[in-house]
Amino acid sequence: MTEYSVVGKSLHKVDSLEKVAGKAVYTNDMKLSGMLTGKILRSPYPHAKVLNIDTSRTKKLQGVKAVITSKDIGNRKMGVAASNRPIWDQPALCLDKVRYIGDEVASVAAVDEDTAMEALELIRVDYKELPAVFDPFEAMEPGAPAIHDGFERNISNQVLTESGDVEQGFRESYQVFEHRYEIKYQAHCAMEPHSSIGVWGLDGRVTLYTSTQNPYNLRSILAYVLGLPEEKVRLVIPKVGGGFGGKAELFPMDVCCAALSRKTGRPVKIVLSREEEFGTTRVSHPFIVDMKTGVKRDGTLIAKQVKCIMDGGAYSGSGLPGPFLSTLFLGIDYKVPNISLNSIRVYTNKTVAGARRGYTAPQAHFAENMHMDMIAAELGIDPVELRLKNAVATGYKTGTGMDITSCGFTEAIEKAANCIGWKEKHGKLNKMDKGVGIGSGGSLSGGSRAANITPANYTAAAMIKLHTEGFATLYSGAQDIGQGADTVMAMIAAEELGISIDKIQIVTGDTDLCPYSAGSASQRITFHSGMATKRAAADAKTHLFEAVAKRLEARVDDLEARDNRIYVKGSYDKGMTFREAIWASQEDNKGKEVVGHGIWRHEVDPAEIKAIFETGKGNYAPAYIFSAGTAEVKVDRETGRVKVDKFCFAMDVGKPINPVMVEGQLEGGLHMGIGLSLGEDLIIENGMILNPSFLNYHLPTVFEMPETDIIIVETDEPKAPFGAKACGEGSVAPVGPAIANAIFDAVGVKIDSLPIKPESILKALK
Amino acid sequence: MTEYSVVGKSLHKVDSLEKVAGKAVYTNDMKLSGMLTGKILRSPYPHAKVLNIDTSRTKKLQGVKAVITSKDIGNRKMGVAASNRPIWDQPALCLDKVRYIGDEVASVAAVDEDTAMEALELIRVDYKELPAVFDPFEAMEPGAPAIHDGFERNISNQVLTESGDVEQGFRESYQVFEHRYEIKYQAHCAMEPHSSIGVWGLDGRVTLYTSTQNPYNLRSILAYVLGLPEEKVRLVIPKVGGGFGGKAELFPMDVCCAALSRKTGRPVKIVLSREEEFGTTRVSHPFIVDMKTGVKRDGTLIAKQVKCIMDGGAYSGSGLPGPFLSTLFLGIDYKVPNISLNSIRVYTNKTVAGARRGYTAPQAHFAENMHMDMIAAELGIDPVELRLKNAVATGYKTGTGMDITSCGFTEAIEKAANCIGWKEKHGKLNKMDKGVGIGSGGSLSGGSRAANITPANYTAAAMIKLHTEGFATLYSGAQDIGQGADTVMAMIAAEELGISIDKIQIVTGDTDLCPYSAGSASQRITFHSGMATKRAAADAKTHLFEAVAKRLEARVDDLEARDNRIYVKGSYDKGMTFREAIWASQEDNKGKEVVGHGIWRHEVDPAEIKAIFETGKGNYAPAYIFSAGTAEVKVDRETGRVKVDKFCFAMDVGKPINPVMVEGQLEGGLHMGIGLSLGEDLIIENGMILNPSFLNYHLPTVFEMPETDIIIVETDEPKAPFGAKACGEGSVAPVGPAIANAIFDAVGVKIDSLPIKPESILKALK
Repeated sequence: MTEYSVVGKSLHKVDSLEKVAGKAVYTNDMKLSGMLTGKILRSPYPHAKVLNIDTSRTKKLQGVKAVITSKDIGNRKMGVAASNRPIWDQPALCLDKVRYIGDEVASVAAVDEDTAMEALELIRVDYKELPAVFDPFEAMEPGAPAIHDGFERNISNQVLTESGDVEQGFRESYQVFEHRYEIKYQAHCAMEPHSSIGVWGLDGRVTLYTSTQNPYNLRSILAYVLGLPEEKVRLVIPKVGGGFGGKAELFPMDVCCAALSRKTGRPVKIVLSREEEFGTTRVSHPFIVDMKTGVKRDGTLIAKQVKCIMDGGAYSGSGLPGPFLSTLFLGIDYKVPNISLNSIRVYTNKTVAGARRGYTAPQAHFAENMHMDMIAAELGIDPVELRLKNAVATGYKTGTGMDITSCGFTEAIEKAANCIGWKEKHGKLNKMDKGVGIGSGGSLSGGSRAANITPANYTAAAMIKLHTEGFATLYSGAQDIGQGADTVMAMIAAEELGISIDKIQIVTGDTDLCPYSAGSASQRITFHSGMATKRAAADAKTHLFEAVAKRLEARVDDLEARDNRIYVKGSYDKGMTFREAIWASQEDNKGKEVVGHGIWRHEVDPAEIKAIFETGKGNYAPAYIFSAGTAEVKVDRETGRVKVDKFCFAMDVGKPINPVMVEGQLEGGLHMGIGLSLGEDLIIENGMILNPSFLNYHLPTVFEMPETDIIIVETDEPKAPFGAKACGEGSVAPVGPAIANAIFDAVGVKIDSLPIKPESILKALK
Repeated sequence: MTEYSVVGKSLHKVDSLEKVAGKAVYTNDMKLSGMLTGKILRSPYPHAKVLNIDTSRTKKLQGVKAVITSKDIGNRKMGVAASNRPIWDQPALCLDKVRYIGDEVASVAAVDEDTAMEALELIRVDYKELPAVFDPFEAMEPGAPAIHDGFERNISNQVLTESGDVEQGFRESYQVFEHRYEIKYQAHCAMEPHSSIGVWGLDGRVTLYTSTQNPYNLRSILAYVLGLPEEKVRLVIPKVGGGFGGKAELFPMDVCCAALSRKTGRPVKIVLSREEEFGTTRVSHPFIVDMKTGVKRDGTLIAKQVKCIMDGGAYSGSGLPGPFLSTLFLGIDYKVPNISLNSIRVYTNKTVAGARRGYTAPQAHFAENMHMDMIAAELGIDPVELRLKNAVATGYKTGTGMDITSCGFTEAIEKAANCIGWKEKHGKLNKMDKGVGIGSGGSLSGGSRAANITPANYTAAAMIKLHTEGFATLYSGAQDIGQGADTVMAMIAAEELGISIDKIQIVTGDTDLCPYSAGSASQRITFHSGMATKRAAADAKTHLFEAVAKRLEARVDDLEARDNRIYVKGSYDKGMTFREAIWASQEDNKGKEVVGHGIWRHEVDPAEIKAIFETGKGNYAPAYIFSAGTAEVKVDRETGRVKVDKFCFAMDVGKPINPVMVEGQLEGGLHMGIGLSLGEDLIIENGMILNPSFLNYHLPTVFEMPETDIIIVETDEPKAPFGAKACGEGSVAPVGPAIANAIFDAVGVKIDSLPIKPESILKALK
């Protein structure tokens, strides 16, 4: 194995010092001269016609600088561009009607927050209530209220993908299993709320400072909504305090900041309250999953038919790829020759569902894993053995077209099982009301369908400039959202250039300065942006090597860069410093600055990728990742409470660029998985969220976190930068089924829906 | 003549709207979280030993966060790097002694300005006064106090350059003229005072936000003084409110901001008061010029010997190149076969003299022009004719080695004379106490001796990135200091790319982001940075042309870019848009982003240029500029007051990129010239400045400005970007002699020193 000098080291994040010292600047820390505070008036009705908006009283309030409605913005709607058939269905401010409680109706800018709040109360809106629908099955019934025009049965979009002959498969099966699973709402709960500042410049350009995962996508859509060419829009991203999929798209607040700034000539900041965070910035999709699986006597899977009904809420937004992604995750991890996967996203008059860490994988893998354990129990096969028997491996091509070019799935299952003491414990702890369970999952190492596609379909780009003074500036499109993108990119650049990481300055988060990225989503950054960065560094290094080779009278191929030095391999002394090499290159090229460029794209048929959100078929990512998690739980039969004593999580991440950061990602995912499994539940009644606060929405605390073992399974993905694949989203999915299966092992009750509340356990025990 | 689509148009500056609206952010407008206010304790003595500094009482004052002395900074001294023999003689805070009233002794950081001011008063410094010297001649006397160790006769540096045989020339002369001229102090008076914010990051990097003309030079010297590698220093330059040579170097306040931030862990801002501006941020060099000229009967100059004594004040700083530049200007504009030019810079215990707009040209050209008129009067030759007879022209190489490759000097003299009505008025208005006079000058279009020399000796660099969305970001090292560099660079890039200027975003003022520049000084930007920008644009355009040619099945040579379109010359319809061309190029190159790079260097022997500050010989600039100004004045015999009724200024600027901006530069120079001639006089007695305020230092107001005619003389300099040469400094020099000569024409008195005060006129009239 190559011994790297930077890659593979557990360095602290490049911005960790400023963060722990409280000096990092987030959007809400910014104070611009003359800045106003913006607030948004939201619909109190789940479905209503907007007859009239009267802002006359508001305008008279001292300190109010502007009030806007849809008349100030126009009727161009928002969405994400990631489809052949994008569904842009959400206006920044409502046009003729409102579609959920929280829908944006009007916005004000005032000298301070109190005035802005008071201003909202003075806006008078005349609504005419319409019948609303909150259940996706009811929404698909004939005669249900139409939430949007032109969408039959309120279905926003749907993916049906098939391979083999599923009916024939069932006929050939020894036994066919059918069961329904249900997964409810979760919120993102990023610590930093959505925050934006719009600055409409006198030059007609608008700059949006905002907390986003996806600056380039936001630029495109904001330009479109405002009717500007893209060069008139600049996105600048201060530090981002978490996204988890909830900051992956343009929000009405962003458009309001810009429009209010245009109207007032002053910067306008809008920061959402925690209540608005819960209610209006996307949630995960609730799923009803009908699983039907045909197996041979020995447990070999031969047919799988799945139908998912996804509750999409009032708009599409980042929910658009949901149906596709759920079919992807249902087809990724186990070999099944005959499949039929059908996912349907349905509009309801509720808050909008969209991307959330794992994006449909936690839901899909919960159903799939619970189903696997049901099959195992019925056939008398050990659940671990059943998984190992059917697990995909390197070289497999899935029915939906994914090429598995590196795969540590088997190793992950084995290691997770061994770690928890599977053989000693499974089926043997129930006298103590304890049990162990396993969950597993597959995911992708970066979706290749960019939210806005560049001409050559690339998803990442980087540029590195070497300064004559002996250091480098890396211009990266990869947005750091707290996950450590800056650190990973700096490490990759440093490794490739053979310099220490403190010689790298990194510039990100500015669409004027930095090259394109498809966004910090879909676990794309380490692989896609990492490859672009590596290529940019290699490009720059080529120039240095040429100059050094000339001076040393050596061949370029014989040179090596390491520890801030370029030298003949094996002869460390025969060489020159990094700084001297830059000088040398500039001397040889009439002073031309040494700059390297790199882009990355997945080399697949662009048409296939472009259509994938509708067809569900294609090799969507350049690589795939696999994981398994095992839980040991204890169930309190009195209270129904479940305590997770230990969790082992094993994941194939390729080569970890920074192991401690990978562990951090996986522990973070585990935390979200625990929440999803046992506590987090956004309760919505008649379209109204009843617990939009951390007081009532139960995020796991440190006391609910188990003893944790993180096992990094290293594989060598040849296409990846130094072999590094993804890890950010993958650890959420296996947690729910591992816990639910452990509960079954402990007390013999099967829970078919998440989250698992004490009352469900008590009910099932009775 | 080529018809350009952007170049040659009088567009408003790209940042004019934000400036007139008061929205532009200057350093002092910046408010950083936790920022402290810094203040500097200065010496009350012109020359004294520092025996002890007691800061104990200061530290106890509530709100004081840090007090620093030289012990906190170390003993590395500052200066400019622009020489083979740099003289770095100024510590940021005094070490063993102080050398002028205002010398920096200690610095404090406190929570607000009042506290910082009070803190200064609590610092107790024990001085032992030393004998001081204020006159440069006295300073050169044996036994004068030594201001610095190791400098004989207090001479900081000296240039003696000779060509031909000046003694032989005098012997062959029909007549030899000798006279002494004197020019006194002027201050820069930039509207924005010197302002800096130091931020010592937790990563060990220091960022200095400051108002400077010369970010890269400051980075080098600041890194040196602080003992850091250069990659640990970043300079960020907000808007700059004028420099005029007074913001061309690192100042003690910059080092103090950084050191105070290191000590407190908080940003520290120092903004100088107007009094500190006058007293401690450089002034022009006072000159005593002894001119000796030998001429033929017909007025042909055959020998010139000049000795300049320059009063340098207490340190060298940006004053280092002064002796060289004065010999350059004395040798540039008139053909003289035999010359001996000797300039001596002398230390005195006064405020430091350095670069100021025109940098010794106003002083040198005053003496030279007054001398020309003396010769003309004596020989009975019209002053205009005498100038025309001796003026240099295209193809001339001066005795000091300058190649005049384009020259509109004759045309400038003729046009300035015609404009004022020379033939009708000269010698004919004295009955009304009116008169006309002429002055002239030559200057350089960008010094090629960079303050810090890059490996390949280049003085400018630029990079242009073309965005897939159809616009461009120009990364430019050229610092906009209010003169409009951003606008000129954007126009040059737009012209070369064939796009409108609103498609160009420009990034400047950040040493991490932008490529190198030798600084916004020496009239360097339009030519040097303009060429780098033009080349970067051309480089990017090449990529576009290749892609377009392929698609149109045309030859690259047949293509033209204009009006946001690339098309076959003569067939506007056969082409594609700029945006389409970027897409095309990226499609053809696997998505590779279209980026162009350009650098510029003067193709001369680097050794010659490197030594030029000592030798005075060499082709210092790639081109030279020439001007003539004519004044019509009326003298009030009662009061001695002079009113300038009209001023005509004609200047060879090559091709003006933006004519109205050129006019603005020349009018601005005229304003400074009027000040220099008639009002501005920094009065220093015993080392103490008596009038350090706008109340007593008389800047001309609009009421003292004459009717003005600006005449742009266009020449075609083949090496220059679109033929554009410099203009920024050139208009100061001819003003003084034009006015002084007009006074002679009006009332028959010769004034041999600037500024001309009413009392001098009254005295001369008696």
